[in-house]
Amino acid sequence: MKILKSFIITFLSLGTLTSSAQKTNLQTFTLDKPYTVEKIQAPKGKKVKNVILMIGDGMSLMHIQAAWTVNRGRLWLENAQAVGLSKTPATNRLITDSGSGGTSLASGYKTSYHAVGVDPTGKPLKSLIDYAKEAGKSAGVAVTCRLWDATPCDFLSHNIDRDKEQELLAEMMNSQVDFVFGGGAKFFNKRDDGRDLFKELQKKGYHVSRTFEDLLNNVKSGKVYCVPFDVDTPLPDERGDLLARASLKGIELLNQNKNGFFMMIEGSQLDDYGHFNQLDLLMKETLDFDRTIGKVMQWAARDGETLVVVTADHETGGLTVHGGDLATGTVKANFSSKGHTGTMVPVYAFGPGAENFTGFMDNTDIFWKIKKLLKL
Amino acid sequence: MKILKSFIITFLSLGTLTSSAQKTNLQTFTLDKPYTVEKIQAPKGKKVKNVILMIGDGMSLMHIQAAWTVNRGRLWLENAQAVGLSKTPATNRLITDSGSGGTSLASGYKTSYHAVGVDPTGKPLKSLIDYAKEAGKSAGVAVTCRLWDATPCDFLSHNIDRDKEQELLAEMMNSQVDFVFGGGAKFFNKRDDGRDLFKELQKKGYHVSRTFEDLLNNVKSGKVYCVPFDVDTPLPDERGDLLARASLKGIELLNQNKNGFFMMIEGSQLDDYGHFNQLDLLMKETLDFDRTIGKVMQWAARDGETLVVVTADHETGGLTVHGGDLATGTVKANFSSKGHTGTMVPVYAFGPGAENFTGFMDNTDIFWKIKKLLKL
Repeated sequence: MKILKSFIITFLSLGTLTSSAQKTNLQTFTLDKPYTVEKIQAPKGKKVKNVILMIGDGMSLMHIQAAWTVNRGRLWLENAQAVGLSKTPATNRLITDSGSGGTSLASGYKTSYHAVGVDPTGKPLKSLIDYAKEAGKSAGVAVTCRLWDATPCDFLSHNIDRDKEQELLAEMMNSQVDFVFGGGAKFFNKRDDGRDLFKELQKKGYHVSRTFEDLLNNVKSGKVYCVPFDVDTPLPDERGDLLARASLKGIELLNQNKNGFFMMIEGSQLDDYGHFNQLDLLMKETLDFDRTIGKVMQWAARDGETLVVVTADHETGGLTVHGGDLATGTVKANFSSKGHTGTMVPVYAFGPGAENFTGFMDNTDIFWKIKKLLKL
Repeated sequence: MKILKSFIITFLSLGTLTSSAQKTNLQTFTLDKPYTVEKIQAPKGKKVKNVILMIGDGMSLMHIQAAWTVNRGRLWLENAQAVGLSKTPATNRLITDSGSGGTSLASGYKTSYHAVGVDPTGKPLKSLIDYAKEAGKSAGVAVTCRLWDATPCDFLSHNIDRDKEQELLAEMMNSQVDFVFGGGAKFFNKRDDGRDLFKELQKKGYHVSRTFEDLLNNVKSGKVYCVPFDVDTPLPDERGDLLARASLKGIELLNQNKNGFFMMIEGSQLDDYGHFNQLDLLMKETLDFDRTIGKVMQWAARDGETLVVVTADHETGGLTVHGGDLATGTVKANFSSKGHTGTMVPVYAFGPGAENFTGFMDNTDIFWKIKKLLKL
């Protein structure tokens, strides 16, 4: 079933090659159990020691509006002190994908559709993970997708073609990243080239956790890959607050470095349920990501020297909100596409340096602002 | 034809009572003659003497994305130093209209759907026009719609029902506003109650211009109503840069007051072509509004004590962008509704005080921020 799902995603992503719109696909979702949201006081200091970049894959302003509506008009995200708009086109296409769009966030350059961590000619680009490591900081990634998916690979790997799944994981072995959490175990050790990437990681000094409990209980310091799932993480109702817990564990480990850290956290599967046009799972993923944002902002507020930047790579599903009720937590929303649509996506920032992320910017500017603030 | 158009708009606005989505309505538009855009240096001072609030009726982020695409990836609006997000629900409905949404911008309170300048019980609310006049400032309005339409009436009139066209104009006579430019002459002097509002205005000391040339050539100071059209202003191709010229004439007159001024300028007819699902005219209206924004920002930059705030009341048309080409100025966009859809709308700010308009806010907060900055 997970292999099938992976196949479907790959197939659908090709659908974005052509502009398309579809018949009415109006769906209704009610959130039975809304969660409370607290006002988080932003830290008063100016020093930016750490940056946590959080990417909602395919998360447009309409996704935020819909999630805000079903949670009775409140989101943790609203604690962001600054909001800006990010322009996302790829070098060769108005409507980008997670490969090109995420590479611009990771590496500061526009690149071609479906490229991952490389420029349009295929030349590898250094990512914020690489720059952070070179500057003596720690660096990590936590995602809910398979690790060969575009967004983590934009930060950890290099390939002109995002569909080169096994190659992308092999290339990832060259990254000096300290903390990795995500799915996709099967192409670590069941590979066409016969390599066992888990064994290779252990030889490089990484602890390899094949369960989240192992990470949580047995890893107190050092470098770690935690890959508990063959492909993606389970559905949001099944996995609970796994993304938040994995992110906080990563932060705990990365924060042991007195020079600070850079971390990328992705709400990966919003994109999938945008492609599938499944409003219920799309809302659950968006709300899970929002609760993760809340946990991360709370940690950052206590720390006082951590900037949190939340954004998206593109929009998925052509979502618009056609009705709803803030009192009952109901939203009626329409999908107009099975692929991505073109829109500037908001950038939300919390903590020291947040004021740099307002106004209009290219998605590449987000990289340059972070690089400058972290003095990389 | 104009009466028919007015009827159609009224009829369609009722369509927003029910949530609806429609069959695919994918349209393509190419802008043959793009315009150049300049970088405008924001003034360095901190004093806010004047505020110009510019409302794109129904102008969502997708409208901006589409207009930015056809103008080859550039808009005057991008000179905004700060961007925020405005939450727009009415008291009794998730998806608002220009009556309720505009009243929140004008008067600082949430109110009911279709209410104009009143609270949900029908009690009149003072608008920024009234507060500015009480504080000894000048105040004005320039729109491209008939003056009995919701947005100008949110600032100049009071009625629980936006459809009370003739009553709204009669009530407008009680406003102390200094400068009014817009359409809608027919209900000034062809009224069921026999009143001639133009004559009443003259008795109150207003100069009444029935042509734009008269305003331009014959009015050098004082209070003025310029109402050159029976209903709305002509189509964008026919009227040229009329909105920009009328706005600058208004600014010239209002700026004669050493205490400063407040002005509201509306790109009114974006909303109409969202309702009609006419991408070509929607783009032309959006670009006309953007060019007006450019002229106003250029004036504000020279003045140095003027804050320009640009926002929308709601989204119209359920627009999403499904393809396009920045090189040829082509956009493919889909309308999913003939009515309004629910989305937070961006707020864009330029000039002294702009930094107050980032992050999340209620549409009512825009009023309170302006009131505070102008010390009203």
